[in-house]
Amino acid sequence: MEKVRIAVLGATGYSGAEAVRLVSQHPGVTLTLVTADQHAGTRLADVHPFLRDCALQLEPVEPARVRERADVAISALPEPAAAAVVPALVRSGVRVIDMSAAFRLKNDEIHRQWYHADPAPDLRRGAVYGLTELRRAEIRDAVLVANPGCYPTGVLLALAPLLRRGMVGGPIVVDAKSGVSGARRKGVVEQLFCEVNENCRAYAVADHRHGPEMEQEIEAFSGRRHQLLFAPHLVPVNRGILATIYAPLAPGAGEEVIGACLREAYAAEPFVVLCGNRWPELREVRGTNLCAIGWKVDVRTGWAILVTVLDNLGKGAAGQALQNLNAMCGFPETEGLLGTALVP
Amino acid sequence: MEKVRIAVLGATGYSGAEAVRLVSQHPGVTLTLVTADQHAGTRLADVHPFLRDCALQLEPVEPARVRERADVAISALPEPAAAAVVPALVRSGVRVIDMSAAFRLKNDEIHRQWYHADPAPDLRRGAVYGLTELRRAEIRDAVLVANPGCYPTGVLLALAPLLRRGMVGGPIVVDAKSGVSGARRKGVVEQLFCEVNENCRAYAVADHRHGPEMEQEIEAFSGRRHQLLFAPHLVPVNRGILATIYAPLAPGAGEEVIGACLREAYAAEPFVVLCGNRWPELREVRGTNLCAIGWKVDVRTGWAILVTVLDNLGKGAAGQALQNLNAMCGFPETEGLLGTALVP
Amino acid sequence: MEKVRIAVLGATGYSGAEAVRLVSQHPGVTLTLVTADQHAGTRLADVHPFLRDCALQLEPVEPARVRERADVAISALPEPAAAAVVPALVRSGVRVIDMSAAFRLKNDEIHRQWYHADPAPDLRRGAVYGLTELRRAEIRDAVLVANPGCYPTGVLLALAPLLRRGMVGGPIVVDAKSGVSGARRKGVVEQLFCEVNENCRAYAVADHRHGPEMEQEIEAFSGRRHQLLFAPHLVPVNRGILATIYAPLAPGAGEEVIGACLREAYAAEPFVVLCGNRWPELREVRGTNLCAIGWKVDVRTGWAILVTVLDNLGKGAAGQALQNLNAMCGFPETEGLLGTALVP
Amino acid sequence: MEKVRIAVLGATGYSGAEAVRLVSQHPGVTLTLVTADQHAGTRLADVHPFLRDCALQLEPVEPARVRERADVAISALPEPAAAAVVPALVRSGVRVIDMSAAFRLKNDEIHRQWYHADPAPDLRRGAVYGLTELRRAEIRDAVLVANPGCYPTGVLLALAPLLRRGMVGGPIVVDAKSGVSGARRKGVVEQLFCEVNENCRAYAVADHRHGPEMEQEIEAFSGRRHQLLFAPHLVPVNRGILATIYAPLAPGAGEEVIGACLREAYAAEPFVVLCGNRWPELREVRGTNLCAIGWKVDVRTGWAILVTVLDNLGKGAAGQALQNLNAMCGFPETEGLLGTALVP
Repeated sequence: MEKVRIAVLGATGYSGAEAVRLVSQHPGVTLTLVTADQHAGTRLADVHPFLRDCALQLEPVEPARVRERADVAISALPEPAAAAVVPALVRSGVRVIDMSAAFRLKNDEIHRQWYHADPAPDLRRGAVYGLTELRRAEIRDAVLVANPGCYPTGVLLALAPLLRRGMVGGPIVVDAKSGVSGARRKGVVEQLFCEVNENCRAYAVADHRHGPEMEQEIEAFSGRRHQLLFAPHLVPVNRGILATIYAPLAPGAGEEVIGACLREAYAAEPFVVLCGNRWPELREVRGTNLCAIGWKVDVRTGWAILVTVLDNLGKGAAGQALQNLNAMCGFPETEGLLGTALVP
Repeated sequence: MEKVRIAVLGATGYSGAEAVRLVSQHPGVTLTLVTADQHAGTRLADVHPFLRDCALQLEPVEPARVRERADVAISALPEPAAAAVVPALVRSGVRVIDMSAAFRLKNDEIHRQWYHADPAPDLRRGAVYGLTELRRAEIRDAVLVANPGCYPTGVLLALAPLLRRGMVGGPIVVDAKSGVSGARRKGVVEQLFCEVNENCRAYAVADHRHGPEMEQEIEAFSGRRHQLLFAPHLVPVNRGILATIYAPLAPGAGEEVIGACLREAYAAEPFVVLCGNRWPELREVRGTNLCAIGWKVDVRTGWAILVTVLDNLGKGAAGQALQNLNAMCGFPETEGLLGTALVP
Repeated sequence: MEKVRIAVLGATGYSGAEAVRLVSQHPGVTLTLVTADQHAGTRLADVHPFLRDCALQLEPVEPARVRERADVAISALPEPAAAAVVPALVRSGVRVIDMSAAFRLKNDEIHRQWYHADPAPDLRRGAVYGLTELRRAEIRDAVLVANPGCYPTGVLLALAPLLRRGMVGGPIVVDAKSGVSGARRKGVVEQLFCEVNENCRAYAVADHRHGPEMEQEIEAFSGRRHQLLFAPHLVPVNRGILATIYAPLAPGAGEEVIGACLREAYAAEPFVVLCGNRWPELREVRGTNLCAIGWKVDVRTGWAILVTVLDNLGKGAAGQALQNLNAMCGFPETEGLLGTALVP
Repeated sequence: MEKVRIAVLGATGYSGAEAVRLVSQHPGVTLTLVTADQHAGTRLADVHPFLRDCALQLEPVEPARVRERADVAISALPEPAAAAVVPALVRSGVRVIDMSAAFRLKNDEIHRQWYHADPAPDLRRGAVYGLTELRRAEIRDAVLVANPGCYPTGVLLALAPLLRRGMVGGPIVVDAKSGVSGARRKGVVEQLFCEVNENCRAYAVADHRHGPEMEQEIEAFSGRRHQLLFAPHLVPVNRGILATIYAPLAPGAGEEVIGACLREAYAAEPFVVLCGNRWPELREVRGTNLCAIGWKVDVRTGWAILVTVLDNLGKGAAGQALQNLNAMCGFPETEGLLGTALVP
């Protein structure tokens, strides 16, 4: 079988480089193009020695080059760049998996409030929100997959089965702890080692753009609006997101019902690990495409507490992008994604 | 003026060593006795070279020695040891500031459920819960101060002014992120560097013994019971606790009212820093006796979100112990506690 | 082809678990037995959730079980346990790759000085020191491979080609910086997070048992004794060793000669990365079986400075063990070992 | 006594902020001016909340302002800015302690090779190299103190007493491990958390500008030139430098002689800690003005190995600057500098 030709756009950032790492280990695809405007002309392996097996030279992001050399583009570009490039790619027949948020929100007003640029509203509205386990059928034929945000992925995987059954009320409190590679690989004082190490901080509390993204999908799964209180925090680790979810339960929905509901949804899923009342740790998914979920019901309050962990560059970005690629191209969904976590 | 003679019991653990560090910098007191059964006979400075200025040799924990040599004992012993030693000390006339939880809970049943040993119920019930800013008058004359837990200190300082005004409903969600020095300095696999570094985990979710401690005080401040959902998490930093508090507000209680209420309570307090809508970071209180509080009201849900940070060994343990010592002995409350945070 | 049956002894420690991780990804072998006296009866996946795909239960270390169920045993036991178990295994026909130092030193006196136990001197003297790139022929037929220490592996790979050509004088200074997983996964105060984090320390300076191990091999490669000054240091990272080597050069041996010499030795080696005058970083080999080497000659002193990095659990332990297994069993030497480093 | 008025130039960088922290705790001085071109008009406490007690607003670096408001300026400006500003300050009568390297090197050629700008060669040649313990007399009356580099401080304190006695031959190997705050507080990719954390790297090997600085002083102390091999490394900690020094000894110079020699030099020094054959750890000097030194002689090679640790922002920058200030202004040299290290 001929290999599917892949371009990775924005290949020097954290999620772009992770996409290159994963694509390189996938037997059914071949990496044909890597872009990075800033480093065009340099070998990717010179920017990132750990990618020494990649012989490609970085090129500027030009739709014509992509169209010519790739069947599918995985874009790790930030929103404005993705908004500028993706429409031309799609129109030219390249299938795109976009890891930015430029095509995730369906509501025009909300999208524009958070992301400003909106060059192709129809494309945005028609993009498939690529939460693989929950949107498999649509992803298969998609021309544009809006790969979910790192925070929403874990939270939605944990909540969707409960929401579908009407088991969760509101407001839902989501307290997330993220590693630093969720931020861009860009020289800013706030992300310097000495500013992050031995520190922990909340940011964009109840004001993060992944809030409306989660609310959109929560509504899609539950059929109604839920109030969400979302507070992300930065913790001094490279990779990983741990989200603690607190949600009032509908009457009768105890631990066993939650467990049954999650097992029904995910028993056959290779990338969702159900931990029951063991709390999953951040490290156990490092470097993988896994999302692990633990839960408990506080009998006094009747609230559920769920903890989900994933690797923000794996299941939270490039891993899920590859899983979507597998779904889109007819590969087994686990192809290239079965590595064990690197611990310690 | 003659100096107050201080014994630090359990001086080689993290909070005990911090107490030694602080006592050594206090002009009005003199350290006369340091104990550590395990290292008795060794100089403290040989166990902890950073305490090189302390010339004392470690001794076994014997009430008679303490009584003979100290006016006040700061105990950093774990619960069972504190339960065994503190009653004898108090009876012999030594004033005690106990950093363990052995004398914090007033309710007999709840105390025994969490801590088992209860050798002196009257003493426990009569101990003053030493949240200095909020119990100053009682602390002044106390013979036994139960120094508050690290998690409760920050949470209660943030909530008490609101609770007193009936501004907060329930359930209150407290999601706390703690550094590792909150655990004992004891060789266990779970606290090894490779188990904690590049990791983050929830533990004792809705099942931590600081839960009932907070509930006791919440009831004391508000006059009624509140449901509390408390989930502590371990993050890879040495020192510090950041707690994010989510609480429904009574009608009319917006950001300004919260601010006014906190300012009224703490405007004159040297150790409480009110940050308004700036989120305080863990590091800005490292090595200090400060507790910094930021807040916001989510207008959609009407819930308040508060973030508090403190150094678990400072305001969360030995710092507050010294502050209580100052109150008990008639020193200015800031004596020996005005150092600036060590950043980075 | 029938799969080679593998036992991993001491499977819950850091290098044992890494061996399990690697064995699980190797298509030509099957893991049939995992041992851990302390956890016997528990599933390995319950001790280490990240190894969730391993269905085996931990068993006690008994030679009879190993002999019955495995063709090759990879031992991650500490020296005394390895000394006790390995001889019986070898006698019963199981081929052994021993990651401890129990069978590395050839000289009786030096061995006993450092390791005391010496239950099978003949076996020890006959064991093959398993530096794969440099001992391939002997490893192929070995019944007992003494897998090299983590520090010696990187240092010897860098120096051997120069030593063989007589290019290096002495004394050779080796200043090594090691991650924490080089120590055993055992609850000791010295390895607690708070003791290692934000810290750096030298230990066993000019008194580490890997010193004589390096000297033995240095003599083997150069044909003469070299004085070695070896100072290991602990740095706060999970994985990796960076060793900086300072060595006086024979007249005429400049950077180009060193480069030619290293390229001649390693140009065809898949696991040795020659970086020239780029200094390799610790992270670029994390999770891999690679050893990367950079070098420079200081023209003023005529000394060479070489920097080598490897993953102490990879090429420094379990990775090289698997590489040796491949050599012993006739697999391509890279089988199961070609993963890309996990960065960041 | 009237307080000495202090300006801190470049007050928002790591060493500048540390200078502010220390000056604020010094009873004999008053901080009258803080500068930072980039943040002029903002309160320092708004840039650095941990400096909340500082009420000053940041101003641009203008010599006239400094002259008017300060008796002594502590400059934390980088070299080009220091070279531009310091001469005007000195000419106008402000005494300057310059933490940059702009005035450290005496040799014109070497200075220009490394630092280019040389606006006031006479001033540079006449500046006192401010290693307080070893240049006290000259510092007392200096108008311009060139505060030593972070690497040279620890290395020179360890070596100077041996060099003065002719006990050390060459080449001297210095392998240093530095925390990240040694780099500027500036947004560059190389210093991002994810680039430094879980990593370790050598840089500027045998090519660092602190090399000639050490060589200059080594020659000054020993009366002759020594070859130096200096390799700095970056380790993932915020603060601290650990330098391991390897040096051949003159005949007869064993451990005891070294100890006697160091004790003779430093027995009465409050900031030099002699550890004998205990290896000092990085953390034991964190936040202090201490330099701790351990040593050993390898009997086989006759080389000495010394390990020195200091806080690069303390004794390696702002701490020593304050110590020099004390010497210059007639304060006790320990004034404001006696805090205990913050551990953990």
